[in-house]
Amino acid sequence: MAGYKPEILIFGAGAIGAFYGAKLAQAGADVSTVCRSNFINVKENGFSIKSPLGDFIFKPKQVVNNIENYNGDPDYIIVTTKVLPEINIPKIILPAVKPDTSIVLLQNGIKIEGPVLKAFPKNEIISGLAFVCLTQLSSGHITHHDYGKLAFGLFPEGVSTKTRLLCDLFRSVNITCELSDNIERTRWKKLVWNAPFNPVSVIGGGINTKQMLDSEPSVELIRNVMKEVFILAEADNCNLNDKVIESNIDATLKMTPYKTSMLLDYENSKKMEVEAILGNAVRFADKKNIRVPYLKSLYALLYLNDKHNL
Amino acid sequence: MAGYKPEILIFGAGAIGAFYGAKLAQAGADVSTVCRSNFINVKENGFSIKSPLGDFIFKPKQVVNNIENYNGDPDYIIVTTKVLPEINIPKIILPAVKPDTSIVLLQNGIKIEGPVLKAFPKNEIISGLAFVCLTQLSSGHITHHDYGKLAFGLFPEGVSTKTRLLCDLFRSVNITCELSDNIERTRWKKLVWNAPFNPVSVIGGGINTKQMLDSEPSVELIRNVMKEVFILAEADNCNLNDKVIESNIDATLKMTPYKTSMLLDYENSKKMEVEAILGNAVRFADKKNIRVPYLKSLYALLYLNDKHNL
Repeated sequence: MAGYKPEILIFGAGAIGAFYGAKLAQAGADVSTVCRSNFINVKENGFSIKSPLGDFIFKPKQVVNNIENYNGDPDYIIVTTKVLPEINIPKIILPAVKPDTSIVLLQNGIKIEGPVLKAFPKNEIISGLAFVCLTQLSSGHITHHDYGKLAFGLFPEGVSTKTRLLCDLFRSVNITCELSDNIERTRWKKLVWNAPFNPVSVIGGGINTKQMLDSEPSVELIRNVMKEVFILAEADNCNLNDKVIESNIDATLKMTPYKTSMLLDYENSKKMEVEAILGNAVRFADKKNIRVPYLKSLYALLYLNDKHNL
Repeated sequence: MAGYKPEILIFGAGAIGAFYGAKLAQAGADVSTVCRSNFINVKENGFSIKSPLGDFIFKPKQVVNNIENYNGDPDYIIVTTKVLPEINIPKIILPAVKPDTSIVLLQNGIKIEGPVLKAFPKNEIISGLAFVCLTQLSSGHITHHDYGKLAFGLFPEGVSTKTRLLCDLFRSVNITCELSDNIERTRWKKLVWNAPFNPVSVIGGGINTKQMLDSEPSVELIRNVMKEVFILAEADNCNLNDKVIESNIDATLKMTPYKTSMLLDYENSKKMEVEAILGNAVRFADKKNIRVPYLKSLYALLYLNDKHNL
């Protein structure tokens, strides 16, 4: 592992892409980034990252504003964009995908890998999750607030050599990285929190984690949404721990009250991951003939908020 | 009936109270009003009402800012306030209730009569609904936009002589007034519309009737909420017409898009009738052991929006 210097392209160099790209560069990888809104700043100055792990500047090897301008043969393309219907990932990354490129989807949600798997049946698809609190306050300026853990697994299951090598790179720069031989289970587990708290923070009227848990009807709603996710995970052969619901509620009660990333997106009139977080879960339920009225209620209401958020 | 000049006290002289009070005065009744925020204006100038039925000024016989200042023996007290936990109707109207006073609750929601029935077991309780579009644009200035139909019945059921006399007064000034011998059934029927559309207009992100019906998930949500109301009505021995759901959706699609009164209240940081419209329905469902996940979702979310609407 020492001396492993893979070529890595980060697609979606917002806060998550910049932070983890920077960490990989610190670990010795050749890291390039595709930037959009922050292209000019990053091209000139790189990313400036403030973090409890130490502040630092990250200058990617190549900074391109269009993936077609990228010149390389990446060992990994790490996709860190939001999962939105209007972002056609397979089509956009196509010019940079080479036969040996592993495509890493470091994104939120459930059942999000299908389109990439279908478009690149011969490439290795690594699916991953980030448990981290990051914001890009201004173009190229990232603040790392808290956490940082990653989880990766081969999609749909197992762990490959390259999954292991990627994890080792992160670990070498003190990022906790879990290798998961059942990454879908890990996704369902994360959804237990994301499915209620992200949407309710928006449709509950723009409220923080504490406010979501300060009334009996809303705690009941959150618990019922979690139960439905638990049942769907089971139907997807991903049994979760019986205590996952209460431990998520307890942990959230203990957090310093904060606004979810979905609420921040909503307040900034940005598109929310309605389909990745709720729509895909609801469609999976329909396919399996499982009734999920609470998830469906949140889905319909979040969909309306997203559509009419001008 | 001609020459019937009852003494009537309107408690809650906002738009609804002013409009129907004015109509009763036109019909010959002695109408007095309890006013709060609009007291000084109304005391001096009366209510000014703009209506497709003709503009007019309504000067109540007595205008008081506190019911204890009312001097009379009313045949009817007509309560037209919102139904809110913080408004203790029995306690407030007590000083004006005489042995022969009929208490008329012209208010929204379901299962709202309990406290008044309990506090005044010997008085006649008339329950009523207004199907009307009214706004009080500034203090004492009411605009009547559309509709105007009323429905009254004795609570819990039947029709009394005084219910009939009240209806006849309204009819004499061209207000359509339905006598209902099962007013609870009429309340459930109105709730089929109110339970989804009022809350979703708020929780859906501040949207109008058309926007609530322009996506598949939201139409499914609205239909499912209506189905639950239908089932609750049945459990309350109030069978509704099988077509009530589709006819409500069709009628709403045909309306000029408009913001619900609940959304206007929310936008003006006023308290919403969370309990009267949803909370009481949910509690009735719990009592009957009927699962109403869609109503419960809306209830929890509307509750949060109301609580955190500053």
